[in-house]
Amino acid sequence: RYGQMEVQDQVGTATGLAYTAAGGDTLSIEVAHYPGKGKLILTGKLGDVMRESAQAAFSYIRSRADQLNVPSDFHEKNDIHIHVPEGATPKDGPSAGITIATALVSSLTGRPIKKEVGMTGEITLRGRVLPIGGLKEKSLSAHRAGITTIIMPKENEKDLEDIPESVREELQFILVDHLDQVLEHALVGEDDEGNSR
Amino acid sequence: RYGQMEVQDQVGTATGLAYTAAGGDTLSIEVAHYPGKGKLILTGKLGDVMRESAQAAFSYIRSRADQLNVPSDFHEKNDIHIHVPEGATPKDGPSAGITIATALVSSLTGRPIKKEVGMTGEITLRGRVLPIGGLKEKSLSAHRAGITTIIMPKENEKDLEDIPESVREELQFILVDHLDQVLEHALVGEDDEGNSR
Amino acid sequence: RYGQMEVQDQVGTATGLAYTAAGGDTLSIEVAHYPGKGKLILTGKLGDVMRESAQAAFSYIRSRADQLNVPSDFHEKNDIHIHVPEGATPKDGPSAGITIATALVSSLTGRPIKKEVGMTGEITLRGRVLPIGGLKEKSLSAHRAGITTIIMPKENEKDLEDIPESVREELQFILVDHLDQVLEHALVGEDDEGNSR
Amino acid sequence: RYGQMEVQDQVGTATGLAYTAAGGDTLSIEVAHYPGKGKLILTGKLGDVMRESAQAAFSYIRSRADQLNVPSDFHEKNDIHIHVPEGATPKDGPSAGITIATALVSSLTGRPIKKEVGMTGEITLRGRVLPIGGLKEKSLSAHRAGITTIIMPKENEKDLEDIPESVREELQFILVDHLDQVLEHALVGEDDEGNSR
Amino acid sequence: RYGQMEVQDQVGTATGLAYTAAGGDTLSIEVAHYPGKGKLILTGKLGDVMRESAQAAFSYIRSRADQLNVPSDFHEKNDIHIHVPEGATPKDGPSAGITIATALVSSLTGRPIKKEVGMTGEITLRGRVLPIGGLKEKSLSAHRAGITTIIMPKENEKDLEDIPESVREELQFILVDHLDQVLEHALVGEDDEGNSR
Amino acid sequence: RYGQMEVQDQVGTATGLAYTAAGGDTLSIEVAHYPGKGKLILTGKLGDVMRESAQAAFSYIRSRADQLNVPSDFHEKNDIHIHVPEGATPKDGPSAGITIATALVSSLTGRPIKKEVGMTGEITLRGRVLPIGGLKEKSLSAHRAGITTIIMPKENEKDLEDIPESVREELQFILVDHLDQVLEHALVGEDDEGNSR
Ligand SMILES: [Ca+2]
Ligand SMILES: [Ca+2]
Ligand SMILES: [Ca+2]
Ligand SMILES: [Ca+2]
Ligand SMILES: [Ca+2]
Ligand SMILES: [Ca+2]
Ligand SMILES: [Ca+2]
Ligand SMILES: [Ca+2]
Ligand SMILES: [Ca+2]
Ligand SMILES: [Ca+2]
Ligand SMILES: [Ca+2]
Ligand SMILES: [Ca+2]
Repeated sequence: RYGQMEVQDQVGTATGLAYTAAGGDTLSIEVAHYPGKGKLILTGKLGDVMRESAQAAFSYIRSRADQLNVPSDFHEKNDIHIHVPEGATPKDGPSAGITIATALVSSLTGRPIKKEVGMTGEITLRGRVLPIGGLKEKSLSAHRAGITTIIMPKENEKDLEDIPESVREELQFILVDHLDQVLEHALVGEDDEGNSR
Repeated sequence: RYGQMEVQDQVGTATGLAYTAAGGDTLSIEVAHYPGKGKLILTGKLGDVMRESAQAAFSYIRSRADQLNVPSDFHEKNDIHIHVPEGATPKDGPSAGITIATALVSSLTGRPIKKEVGMTGEITLRGRVLPIGGLKEKSLSAHRAGITTIIMPKENEKDLEDIPESVREELQFILVDHLDQVLEHALVGEDDEGNSR
Repeated sequence: RYGQMEVQDQVGTATGLAYTAAGGDTLSIEVAHYPGKGKLILTGKLGDVMRESAQAAFSYIRSRADQLNVPSDFHEKNDIHIHVPEGATPKDGPSAGITIATALVSSLTGRPIKKEVGMTGEITLRGRVLPIGGLKEKSLSAHRAGITTIIMPKENEKDLEDIPESVREELQFILVDHLDQVLEHALVGEDDEGNSR
Repeated sequence: RYGQMEVQDQVGTATGLAYTAAGGDTLSIEVAHYPGKGKLILTGKLGDVMRESAQAAFSYIRSRADQLNVPSDFHEKNDIHIHVPEGATPKDGPSAGITIATALVSSLTGRPIKKEVGMTGEITLRGRVLPIGGLKEKSLSAHRAGITTIIMPKENEKDLEDIPESVREELQFILVDHLDQVLEHALVGEDDEGNSR
Repeated sequence: RYGQMEVQDQVGTATGLAYTAAGGDTLSIEVAHYPGKGKLILTGKLGDVMRESAQAAFSYIRSRADQLNVPSDFHEKNDIHIHVPEGATPKDGPSAGITIATALVSSLTGRPIKKEVGMTGEITLRGRVLPIGGLKEKSLSAHRAGITTIIMPKENEKDLEDIPESVREELQFILVDHLDQVLEHALVGEDDEGNSR
Repeated sequence: RYGQMEVQDQVGTATGLAYTAAGGDTLSIEVAHYPGKGKLILTGKLGDVMRESAQAAFSYIRSRADQLNVPSDFHEKNDIHIHVPEGATPKDGPSAGITIATALVSSLTGRPIKKEVGMTGEITLRGRVLPIGGLKEKSLSAHRAGITTIIMPKENEKDLEDIPESVREELQFILVDHLDQVLEHALVGEDDEGNSR
């Protein structure tokens, strides 16, 4: 079963790009929140590096709640659950960092994520985007799944040349070095300052 | 001992379909709740994937409590226990997801589950139903146990052809891609909108 | 040292029947409670399956506190300790389920358990009694220990024929499929509805 | 270094008898309590069986606080620490049960323990005293350490014959089957009912 | 990819110097805090020694909050997250101690860290700076990354001679034996006593 | 690097004597406390026996807070951190017990510890001092580090003869069997009863 693009823009669901021994794959990252006491729940057979990556994304958002239009007390009045479906498949690595962060912001602000966007990049506690591996394989699988826009780390620009030209021409690549740029391109609608996109 | 159909519609007990090295089997999923502090207890020698699957089902229900007619504060005033009997038999995998979700909703709303229904399907945090393996073996064991209706993932439609025709003709298959459809077919009685079933 | 029957009816102590590589044995299940915060303590070198079995018994009782005449707030005002003596001997398996449940109900209601009764059977979250193994060996050891009444799962009826007739004739077997029947036969005295036993 | 008898009656310190591959030994069990929140702390390189044994002793005392003249709220206003010195030596097994229980009661009531008394016996949640191994070796080491009175399980009476007569004649053996008897012989002074000892 | 100097002075981000089998490397230490309950979160695939080192740095700062101009109640009103990016790379050892402490003080006081400074040194609970290994390799990698000032333990002075003269001449080395000296040289701006730097 | 004597009397820092396969060594034990909720934090790559030893020292002090002039509520208003520097070096064993206890009392009362004093001895929950190993090696390394007074267990008196006379003559040995004696000789200044030292 190949990954598939979402059929409509979703709140709390972002599409990541994974790279395994078996090649590239797309990955749904789902976030839900509900009244609770601030617990962060992580499921989907996630390895330690991916769990820490999710924790870093979560902390970045908590430390910048105001700028991101996230209610500043969401963390103490809600439990947050991050799940990566296909629960029997092990997943690991830091490259889902910006995807997790985007799904979290979407869930907490209610703004949908554009269904045609896939993304990959490690996130730091300051929101910086660090480079990842397997850009070629990730791009091929995203293309197969119907994704048309890929958000990727600026530091991986040199790896674009590895993607077959026929595929590269059908994809739009957005190069970023900070999560603010990811959110600007991935979230639907208008932000606080009234800029439409 | 083959699995057996329930003798009457039960609140908080759903029948799942399992697939092991030894073939297919039916599985009771039991849910009980009682005054407590919001703890989720999982027993029955469950592996990590099945435990995470239960957690995802639980979070989906908490994040949609209103629509599912579940009192929104049940989670902080109750402990919830999910148990899968035959406590010495190891169980694992994500395919009991929709069965666990159905048993939870039944326990929390008091609506019984139809005794003639068996089901299988991974659940995601958004309530989507993902495909499973072993549909043939699961169907055979359900049939042996007296089940007449099987709720299964739409994405497994292609696997129906693997089931011997003699059995297939005695079973009703309901293909779903969201938990809402599972609940509509598995729960007894009228829902909030007054639709009888 | 063979197991021994209690010398008088006890509150909070039930006699289980165990089946190990070395044959059958009797097992005291002791329950004590005291002012606390709802902690469940399990000791006696118990394996995971037996611990989960105790948890299922405990949850069944909590979810049916009213019908069982257990004060509904006992769980938040008491700690409950379940201990299986001979603390150096490893114990495991689900077949002590109904024995643990009976000892719990006895401790929480103050009703003694008949000293001449031994029992075996897995319990589910709904109070159903599931079949067990080793009925023959369990019966022989119970007989040696002075037990005269054995409560056992209805589904094990077919295994009665394996017990030597000389022993079988000196034992009374009570076949049950629900914990309510276990309690009716194991607890001393009158219940709420005024039925004497 | 052989074990040594205490030089005076102590509150919160009891002498146990241990039996290891290297022979018998005496063991100090120390208990201290201080304002806290009811935590039970166990140290001294104790194995799981000995830790569970301490927990059973603790629960017995909590469930019988009134009869033992222990303030019924000590558990929620104090932390209790049980330590077995010579912290680098691993210790395990259930036979220190009655020694731990005696040290706990002494610490919580302020009544000293007679310095010439050594003891051995498993304790159950009901205060019953179960048999132990190594009585001969334990008695020899107690004798060497200056102990003159040994409290031991009634069920071990048959093992007295294994102790060399020269040693046996210099020791007083007190056979018990319940903790009440242990406390009666080990604690100094008058109890609640005004019986002097 | 070689480490890179920060492009501007940052609050909550300090540059450490690491020494691995593969040679020297620079390391960003990121600290964020946000409203919470005093939890300390550590991520970045950190080994036990590095985690304890972070804990020691944190405790030093908490025990000297007043002198460091850190609000004395920050610990109970905030969660603190320390992250070391490149989340898939294992990191360990005590030599990031002063870097972590500096990043913590910067985050908690809002004073930026000079971007041209790299540092290495174990920290103790009293703020003492203990010697480290690999000064040569650390200095070379810092130089490559554009760092111009290295803060290092006074006890490592003898190791300066191992650094090639061409590199040594382009670096300023600040030798310290206490964290106070580290903070004086690493933090931008004026401190409480009005000393400009 | 040999251990070194402190350059001045310190509050919360005591010098212990360690004995490893590589010979004797001196060890700083550092204690800090700060507003918190009573957590005991132990760092410095400490083994289980050393951790339990610290816990026993802590409990002894809590159970005798009044006599030791420690505010009786320090434990619920402070977190206590015990750290043993050189964080990458594994440490274990019970012989740092009295050193840890002394550093704790110093930190909690504000009385400094004499810088010329080194010490070794297991502590029990009653404050008794038990014998240790490696006195010769410990004394030699203490001497090398500039220590002039060694506090040691009375039960190790027989091992003094193993120390070379040239070293023995330059050291003062204080033999103790209770922590009270340790504190009397290690802490600077006047105690509550007005005795100067
Ligand atoms: Ca896939
Ligand atoms: Ca390339
Ligand atoms: Ca079955
Ligand atoms: Ca097929
Ligand atoms: Ca037995
Ligand atoms: Ca048969
Ligand atoms: Ca000994
Ligand atoms: Ca004998
Ligand atoms: Ca690097
Ligand atoms: Ca050198
Ligand atoms: Ca050293
Ligand atoms: Ca000697």
